[in-house]
Amino acid sequence: MDTPKTAAVVGAGPGLGAALARRFAREGYAVGLFARSESSLLPVRQELEKTGGRAGVYVADAADEASLRSAFARMRAELGAPEVCIYNAGTYAMAGLLELTPEQFESSWKIGCMGGFLTAREVVPAMLERGRGTLLFTGATASLRGAARFSAFAVGKFGLRALAQSLARELGPKGIHVAHVVIDGMIDTQRVRNMMPGREASTMLSPDAIAETYWQLHRQDPSAWTQELDVRPAAEKF
Amino acid sequence: MDTPKTAAVVGAGPGLGAALARRFAREGYAVGLFARSESSLLPVRQELEKTGGRAGVYVADAADEASLRSAFARMRAELGAPEVCIYNAGTYAMAGLLELTPEQFESSWKIGCMGGFLTAREVVPAMLERGRGTLLFTGATASLRGAARFSAFAVGKFGLRALAQSLARELGPKGIHVAHVVIDGMIDTQRVRNMMPGREASTMLSPDAIAETYWQLHRQDPSAWTQELDVRPAAEKF
Amino acid sequence: MDTPKTAAVVGAGPGLGAALARRFAREGYAVGLFARSESSLLPVRQELEKTGGRAGVYVADAADEASLRSAFARMRAELGAPEVCIYNAGTYAMAGLLELTPEQFESSWKIGCMGGFLTAREVVPAMLERGRGTLLFTGATASLRGAARFSAFAVGKFGLRALAQSLARELGPKGIHVAHVVIDGMIDTQRVRNMMPGREASTMLSPDAIAETYWQLHRQDPSAWTQELDVRPAAEKF
Amino acid sequence: MDTPKTAAVVGAGPGLGAALARRFAREGYAVGLFARSESSLLPVRQELEKTGGRAGVYVADAADEASLRSAFARMRAELGAPEVCIYNAGTYAMAGLLELTPEQFESSWKIGCMGGFLTAREVVPAMLERGRGTLLFTGATASLRGAARFSAFAVGKFGLRALAQSLARELGPKGIHVAHVVIDGMIDTQRVRNMMPGREASTMLSPDAIAETYWQLHRQDPSAWTQELDVRPAAEKF
Repeated sequence: MDTPKTAAVVGAGPGLGAALARRFAREGYAVGLFARSESSLLPVRQELEKTGGRAGVYVADAADEASLRSAFARMRAELGAPEVCIYNAGTYAMAGLLELTPEQFESSWKIGCMGGFLTAREVVPAMLERGRGTLLFTGATASLRGAARFSAFAVGKFGLRALAQSLARELGPKGIHVAHVVIDGMIDTQRVRNMMPGREASTMLSPDAIAETYWQLHRQDPSAWTQELDVRPAAEKF
Repeated sequence: MDTPKTAAVVGAGPGLGAALARRFAREGYAVGLFARSESSLLPVRQELEKTGGRAGVYVADAADEASLRSAFARMRAELGAPEVCIYNAGTYAMAGLLELTPEQFESSWKIGCMGGFLTAREVVPAMLERGRGTLLFTGATASLRGAARFSAFAVGKFGLRALAQSLARELGPKGIHVAHVVIDGMIDTQRVRNMMPGREASTMLSPDAIAETYWQLHRQDPSAWTQELDVRPAAEKF
Repeated sequence: MDTPKTAAVVGAGPGLGAALARRFAREGYAVGLFARSESSLLPVRQELEKTGGRAGVYVADAADEASLRSAFARMRAELGAPEVCIYNAGTYAMAGLLELTPEQFESSWKIGCMGGFLTAREVVPAMLERGRGTLLFTGATASLRGAARFSAFAVGKFGLRALAQSLARELGPKGIHVAHVVIDGMIDTQRVRNMMPGREASTMLSPDAIAETYWQLHRQDPSAWTQELDVRPAAEKF
Repeated sequence: MDTPKTAAVVGAGPGLGAALARRFAREGYAVGLFARSESSLLPVRQELEKTGGRAGVYVADAADEASLRSAFARMRAELGAPEVCIYNAGTYAMAGLLELTPEQFESSWKIGCMGGFLTAREVVPAMLERGRGTLLFTGATASLRGAARFSAFAVGKFGLRALAQSLARELGPKGIHVAHVVIDGMIDTQRVRNMMPGREASTMLSPDAIAETYWQLHRQDPSAWTQELDVRPAAEKF
């Protein structure tokens, strides 16, 4: 056995990130968990290890090249270079044009989009060497349309989609599957439940159900790769 | 056991149709095979039966209400009402505006789009009764953009996509998953190989790989349904 | 002077159709007015003639080839072949999948889309001969997305957009400008005002304002043609 | 007379920028010309003044808040606050994922997208006060699709489109018309002619023809505003 099966999840805190880590761990992947705060990653690692999984915790700021570079170097040393990498980081800013500061606008883009570029630069070289790999990006409703008071968020999400499309066209012929998942709705997390106590579960996306679709994207045969798909609850108006 | 697991494939001849039938048969589904000519369906049924599957052959013109209605009545009597139905019929007309006759334009739409509407009307009532079901539509590059000399084909494919989107919004909240698959490229079939003997397999979509994605769409949890996805070969320029 | 400036408006009844006729008449165009009922066209002609314009009334069913063909033959004999033609016909059906009859579904498409194809066939030959011409199609919100209970309408409008895109790519290099206008909102007509007496004018599109944009599309220089644009009221949520 | 008619063009060097300035000057607008280098603006001002126009030259880095802020303050003092503002700046980076540095990726976004945000912040307050104004953004083919080796450029252009859509929805109901122009093709400039000496003019967009469409967007009645349109040469394959 040369390389153990390894996955990286950037933005691996509770919610979708943890569910993605669980899904790949269930298939025997060692999972590198990346986020800005260690405290959000430790329970995820603990959960994976309880069910026999293997995980590494890598604290990094996805918007900062040096921080991300050193975190990925540690992961490669401990778990190996990931054959699948998911960029799931992002922030959610909501403010009108004149309320937003340029710093907020820029930092929303950096975490929403530039982190995806920096992450791709870390993981693609080993994928090119192997001639295969999977790179998945988490999008949102705002990847497809702007909305009042959503300019900062939409700029990041549109940009991440542009990156995913460009990389799919650049890297697909070299064996790397690049796909973009448009999550159209509210994800059912503890945080959302606390904020909206009355909200019915049927109107939210289950993180595990979303994670299943990421897993199936990774499993696709190169002769029929998906570049983009959407997911939303059956009950969602759209 | 009340209803055995049953699927219908409209446009079930060799190529993608047969692969879809095989994929669902492999999971224990009895498969209703629909096409205009019996001769294209018999080898598909034979293949399914050889591997222990169960299939019914239903000759019908998907563009003709009476013909389709009677074929589905026979299927319901023999195999039961389908819990998943795939509309995979279509024709491929290529001609400039002044070369196309109105009859060709209309008949291309009827098979490309109206047959999807007629099919949905046949299968949806039983799905509504059960409160669940899956309806999948086969799209193409021409579902998303018109092209010179492709007006008849694109009109049918755009229309089928409009139908899929409208039905997803109407039927999703009632438990029926409606999805549209954009097949962006040439499918690797015997017919295409005969027409283009030098074409490399890596530039074509494998019918079985596409069928796997249809199967995974059917398996999705209602909390995270996909309405649309694309598939294309890794090597495809797009 | 060989050919006088001539325009055709298919779907020229009160509202947008009449406004389009007025706008081109103001520039000295003789306008062929097409609709299913003469009574809806006579007041439009009368209005144009009052302001010194010239118009012909051509009763035709846009979904019927023979009817349209003979109406255009009369127009060519009386006013000359149109150098600009606007397809503005359509019906508005709203019903769920199981309420719609196949006849309604088909007739909605015929008037919504096939009439555009038949119209193009009537006017394009003379445009090709001259090496120039303009073909404009009226779209709607439903040209871009399906909605629950809108399948029949969306299928026609998606189809018309597919036709416009395909013809733009086929005919643009031959000097014919083909464009599609997405009207995103309610047009301010007497009929709408009667139906919704309390509705504020600022939430509706003025037919004359829309017509101005069609006129500007016709005036565009071939080095920078628009294929598609949207229009909506400033106050519209979208 | 309180405020003279005033327009600002950010990215006003030779080519489309100069043509936009000319078009608005022809209608009597005093035009603020913004670019990074004074030498690219002086000939534009000279040309406008020769034909009786009035123009101000404002050297600024559109990606730098302080620089842009001070340039707009000077323009307001000299010409008045612009009632129409066009963001036409951008750079054209083309490189694969591993060739691009993070600095290049970031600076391409800053000039391609963030400059549009900073510009909007400078001009929108006076527009809100007046209850009217026009904000136009220059897009490209890469606003709608990513391409191999185009990730940096597409990220900026997708982002600018997200910004335009978000601002249209935020500011439209307040009387500010925000529109996005997708320029799909090569603009016919001296620089392009030098680079591609054999290229036929008919395959390129004339800057003056594009500028006419920007002018018409500005003239639209609020009851039928366009949010997005494309322009391309008649001869363009698309």
